Amino acid sequence: MKMFLLAGVGVALGFVLFSQQLNSGAARAAADSAIRAVLTDQQGAWNRGDVDTFMKGYWNSPELTFAGSNGVTRGWELVMARYRKNYPDAAAMGHLDFSEIEIRMFGNDAALVLGRWHLKRANDEPGGVFTLVFQRFPEGWRIIHDHTSAETKR
Amino acid sequence: MKMFLLAGVGVALGFVLFSQQLNSGAARAAADSAIRAVLTDQQGAWNRGDVDTFMKGYWNSPELTFAGSNGVTRGWELVMARYRKNYPDAAAMGHLDFSEIEIRMFGNDAALVLGRWHLKRANDEPGGVFTLVFQRFPEGWRIIHDHTSAETKR
Repeated sequence: MKMFLLAGVGVALGFVLFSQQLNSGAARAAADSAIRAVLTDQQGAWNRGDVDTFMKGYWNSPELTFAGSNGVTRGWELVMARYRKNYPDAAAMGHLDFSEIEIRMFGNDAALVLGRWHLKRANDEPGGVFTLVFQRFPEGWRIIHDHTSAETKR
Repeated sequence: MKMFLLAGVGVALGFVLFSQQLNSGAARAAADSAIRAVLTDQQGAWNRGDVDTFMKGYWNSPELTFAGSNGVTRGWELVMARYRKNYPDAAAMGHLDFSEIEIRMFGNDAALVLGRWHLKRANDEPGGVFTLVFQRFPEGWRIIHDHTSAETKR
């Protein structure tokens, strides 16, 4: 009786572990495309001059952090205010492109994302690299930390 | 018999979950101090002009990434070469201070670390913010991604 019970537990455990493996592959692919979709949506919103929708990619929290050439900006409201101040109109916003996106997962609910940004404007074309940390919330993947810097011409 | 077995399993599961909670608190505190120790060691090494020891804080891998004003530098060797080129002697290295370190854990093996860097040199005092992603390896916590940027004077 005990032997059967142990065998049963062993088989059940095997199934659980195997299905977790399957889930983890599928979860990873789902996370990858969900994160890319957030960035594509941000790019589209920016290029329509829609900062409100652009900001939906960020965690709406006082704990959101944005690091850059002005140090650390803390909280969703202030990150939004920073964007509105630095990019007051369509001419300043220009046309945004993200490229060379790389995603590294940490477990199922967090990811490190690297990429390049490029802004095409009438008079200049600034660009550089960004580091994003994404976290999965019930409402979806959101950026919880953004470090964006400009590239000096080489 | 079955009832006793179930009760036994329940109690055992309770112990396992409870001890995991304890472990997770202790693991978090251990991770926090291990990560801070890596940064303190880096600071000390830098201030002795010892780039080799400074570099021990980084994951010794071709997958190490460093993002900054020159875009992304990839691989431990090239990150080291970048430091040696930008900081060729004790005068260029100056005196380094890290401050305002903030650590957010992702599970037990990864952490997001924000902080400020400040360099005191004879003729200037550059500084700014950094974003580090640490990962726990058998040999200890190492930086797997560094995004460092200079702060423009406000």
